[in-house]
Amino acid sequence: MPPPPVRALLFDVFGTVVDWRRGVIDAVRPFLDRHGVATSAAPAFADAWRALYPTAMEKVRSGRRGFVRLDVLHRENLEAILPRFGIAPTAVPEAELFALNEAWHRLDPWPDAVAGLTRLRQHFVVAPLSNGNIALLLAMAKRAALPWDAILGAEVVQAYKPTPEAYLRTAELLALQPDEICLVAAHNGDLAAARRCGLRTVFVPRPTEHGLSQTTDLVAEQAWDVTAPDFEALADAFGA
Amino acid sequence: MPPPPVRALLFDVFGTVVDWRRGVIDAVRPFLDRHGVATSAAPAFADAWRALYPTAMEKVRSGRRGFVRLDVLHRENLEAILPRFGIAPTAVPEAELFALNEAWHRLDPWPDAVAGLTRLRQHFVVAPLSNGNIALLLAMAKRAALPWDAILGAEVVQAYKPTPEAYLRTAELLALQPDEICLVAAHNGDLAAARRCGLRTVFVPRPTEHGLSQTTDLVAEQAWDVTAPDFEALADAFGA
Repeated sequence: MPPPPVRALLFDVFGTVVDWRRGVIDAVRPFLDRHGVATSAAPAFADAWRALYPTAMEKVRSGRRGFVRLDVLHRENLEAILPRFGIAPTAVPEAELFALNEAWHRLDPWPDAVAGLTRLRQHFVVAPLSNGNIALLLAMAKRAALPWDAILGAEVVQAYKPTPEAYLRTAELLALQPDEICLVAAHNGDLAAARRCGLRTVFVPRPTEHGLSQTTDLVAEQAWDVTAPDFEALADAFGA
Repeated sequence: MPPPPVRALLFDVFGTVVDWRRGVIDAVRPFLDRHGVATSAAPAFADAWRALYPTAMEKVRSGRRGFVRLDVLHRENLEAILPRFGIAPTAVPEAELFALNEAWHRLDPWPDAVAGLTRLRQHFVVAPLSNGNIALLLAMAKRAALPWDAILGAEVVQAYKPTPEAYLRTAELLALQPDEICLVAAHNGDLAAARRCGLRTVFVPRPTEHGLSQTTDLVAEQAWDVTAPDFEALADAFGA
């Protein structure tokens, strides 16, 4: 029996749809400047901020901490790294910390993303399946005109990727079987977890997500159902 | 201090955005015909189906039953009313029951709805705050081109309106204060519950939701923040 048709394409967001590192660097630079830190530290600041993300989420995934949205983890991680750059969190006005944390709401898509999503949306349900929280993904989508049909992800199902619950509860909400859903991601680990849950998989490498010297996720580490260089090629591959 | 600006307009859906009765009647008519029942019974069938909705939800709201999505309640209610129209549920093929139940996914918007929402979306977050489940609202939106920014509602927050949790947890997900949100509904009861939670309120009467002899919700029963005859006038009122 052939597999059922794909009904929904769900997307990892940070790195896959948007260039988080460029956006965070751009937001960090004036912040550092205001606090007397060389703006050349902005890439290191962005990388340090992001580097705390897996550990923070792991506490939730492992059950050591109840579910908290990503905005909260980002804020805690921001305050954790400030001293490394010579800035005392208590010396920064609350409004400024809040605004900097919202850099994650104001990220630009890769140049092919909106065009590809717009084509795919004519044929499939398209939605984020991101660890970003609803308010974050919503603000990002409105600013960047990402044409999502719905805002799905970790907060909706109260489970962070790559736990199986993140994928399976999302399928259940959509009233779809896992193999009627395709996860699109720039990260082999996300795809591997989705495949273990029965989802189909599309790899779209984003070789500069981590900057020009990126060493990870440059190539497909398994035979994913589709590998496409960008979202326009992805739309081609799905006949959209 | 003036109230904060409204950031999000959230909409009741059944009756407020879509003409559920017309759509259900249209889906019921051929079903009755196939089963040897006069198609003139279709309006009574639609009304009987809908009439079981409050009681079914009340079991969940009261905690006597765990949260189940509206598709499940609609299906149970469908099987409950079939015998009244001389049809044994067990005599109907499963695929046919399933398809008829999905009539609630295929409802047409009132003529002003898409145009008004499209204007409002340029200035505000627009999303359903409906008791409909995610898959239902998503299918409805894609078919009818409802330009939602997100799919919110009872299933996302696991609480049916008019419990306070339905409104307050939704505000929390949006990271908004209740008075930064405006509920738009054709039902005074929904607006009264939203107001008790601190939301702002817009009444858009839909005087034929229940047919030409409708007696309820014809007029505003409180001084709602805005009363507008349709979504175009609503967009006018919000400067959209």
